[in-house]
Amino acid sequence: MSSPGSEPPAGTSLGEAALVADTGERALIERIRQRLPPAPAEVLVGIGDDAAVAEPERGALQVVTTDALVEGVHFDRRFSSAADIGYKALAVNVSDVASMGGVTRLALLSLMLPAGTSVADVDSLLDGLLLMAASTRVTLVGGNITRSPGPLVVDVTAIGSVRRRRVLTRAGGRAGDWLYVTGAVGAAVAGLEWLRDRATDPASEPSDGTLADCVARHRRPEPRARIGALLGRTRAASACMDASDGLADAVSQMAAQSGTGATIDAAALPIHPGARRWFESRGRDPVRSSLGGSDDYELVFAVSKKARSRLRSVVRDARGVPITRIGELTADREVSLVRHGEAEPLPSGFVHF
Amino acid sequence: MSSPGSEPPAGTSLGEAALVADTGERALIERIRQRLPPAPAEVLVGIGDDAAVAEPERGALQVVTTDALVEGVHFDRRFSSAADIGYKALAVNVSDVASMGGVTRLALLSLMLPAGTSVADVDSLLDGLLLMAASTRVTLVGGNITRSPGPLVVDVTAIGSVRRRRVLTRAGGRAGDWLYVTGAVGAAVAGLEWLRDRATDPASEPSDGTLADCVARHRRPEPRARIGALLGRTRAASACMDASDGLADAVSQMAAQSGTGATIDAAALPIHPGARRWFESRGRDPVRSSLGGSDDYELVFAVSKKARSRLRSVVRDARGVPITRIGELTADREVSLVRHGEAEPLPSGFVHF
Repeated sequence: MSSPGSEPPAGTSLGEAALVADTGERALIERIRQRLPPAPAEVLVGIGDDAAVAEPERGALQVVTTDALVEGVHFDRRFSSAADIGYKALAVNVSDVASMGGVTRLALLSLMLPAGTSVADVDSLLDGLLLMAASTRVTLVGGNITRSPGPLVVDVTAIGSVRRRRVLTRAGGRAGDWLYVTGAVGAAVAGLEWLRDRATDPASEPSDGTLADCVARHRRPEPRARIGALLGRTRAASACMDASDGLADAVSQMAAQSGTGATIDAAALPIHPGARRWFESRGRDPVRSSLGGSDDYELVFAVSKKARSRLRSVVRDARGVPITRIGELTADREVSLVRHGEAEPLPSGFVHF
Repeated sequence: MSSPGSEPPAGTSLGEAALVADTGERALIERIRQRLPPAPAEVLVGIGDDAAVAEPERGALQVVTTDALVEGVHFDRRFSSAADIGYKALAVNVSDVASMGGVTRLALLSLMLPAGTSVADVDSLLDGLLLMAASTRVTLVGGNITRSPGPLVVDVTAIGSVRRRRVLTRAGGRAGDWLYVTGAVGAAVAGLEWLRDRATDPASEPSDGTLADCVARHRRPEPRARIGALLGRTRAASACMDASDGLADAVSQMAAQSGTGATIDAAALPIHPGARRWFESRGRDPVRSSLGGSDDYELVFAVSKKARSRLRSVVRDARGVPITRIGELTADREVSLVRHGEAEPLPSGFVHF
């Protein structure tokens, strides 16, 4: 691409319909750099060098995570726009940092682009990612772009901060702690199922508002960034994780790592109304379908008896996001769903292979 | 996969010949966790939670970078073992941090595995990565594993530290600064070309020791981690970058970002002896072939007149790695190769699309 000794072409000179295959890495990076909002003072070297350099918050610990969205595994281009994919790729990482009680500060974007990708697609993907970044005050400081002989891959690394002793792991729960979940569950999987079923009219969207919300939650999950940070800062939670692979999976993992069991009260589950309607219309059990459904990115957390008063301040500051008690951690190592007084095993979560 | 309420299966219970497709993400993560050396005290939460938590070095800035190796783009399974790929995936990131004057401390590993991948392949890949990690004192603190419907992808994020005012960007060079390169150039591309040519006997290795070294440098590049950190610490360099996309590309980028031109002296280039022999045997110009050849991961850096004495202490501490003066930055914005007193344009570097 770059001719000998030439400077990188300016990003804005590219036609949007141009293919990345005809554009070159350096022009794409320059185009991305030009679209970023101004970086905060903590970023000393941003995009365009071998690595980015930032000044971590004084006295804070680093929280780091990475999560990839792979075409054909985590998204389908017929269901999600490039902007949706960019949005979600950052959202799922912000969710992981929030579930540690941390605040995401920096992100790195690693893009693997199939040959047919257009520059407009890269722009849209970045638009979506930057929308999520703006809403959570995250700065994109670098990344990597390469071609892909296979699927589109969007791999994001998030780097955040958390104060010492405010880290929320999965292992901190104790028998007797109450279990809570933010928001509503089952929405994302119901939305995805609706999209898979709409084959007769591939451009249609749900006319039902609650189902439309389910589709939106599949495409653009809202990480509970604020609540995660509050749970850490107030030390209201003893353990926390996100329900990315399903609520049942999250509770099972938290119990296993905390050395406890858990019970979930079927009647207490905050099942999304659109999801409930969807599962019932298909003759399926809304409780088990919602518990097993992945991609909700709600936070699941445990609260000790002593910390319940601190939880009240989190609920007050949650800006309308419901926080619902759904069960408790138990000394007995079993993990079960309790319905009409009867225990049943939990469904399993999203399978990555 | 995980049955309802069960704990993750122990990693060691998997047969090596097992396919990851039959193994499950959690068992693979547990297997990786069990193979890691003990983490240093700065790692508070390692693999197995939503994110890792570490304590950055007091008073240090963060250096962060990500780089992916994609099957069919950056490596060929016929030429590189899984261990080679793991080794290189970390090495290229360590090189990026070193070229900022930083020291890599933490790494995140994002794996995208095709359906036919065996558990033994994942083990080998990790062996290679951990070998590189041990030699540079890097701790693997987390990552992500998912399946790939296309190529094997190994995406690594490196997080390092550097002191303020010791950051080496590409933009710090000034006209009159001398240009240096570590080690030898042309080896990796010569090694790759040899591998592509050996079609008659796909399992053969070079009998010539210098050519065998070229093949080794393609498979397992040695990042100049120590020299990069020394160049930052001593402030010997005014600008620095790695030659991952070729020496010509590195010099062009450094000159463009520093607002200078550059000349490279053809006679001074430390061309790897195996590469020189390889290019000459094919009737090609060793100078241009080495300048244009990617994947060497040598450091290219500029040194001001004032800093030359500081460079001497770096050379003394370089543990036998040659550091060669190859040219200088110029006020004239042209970038050229000077051979027998005549200037010619530089070849272009590795094209990512």
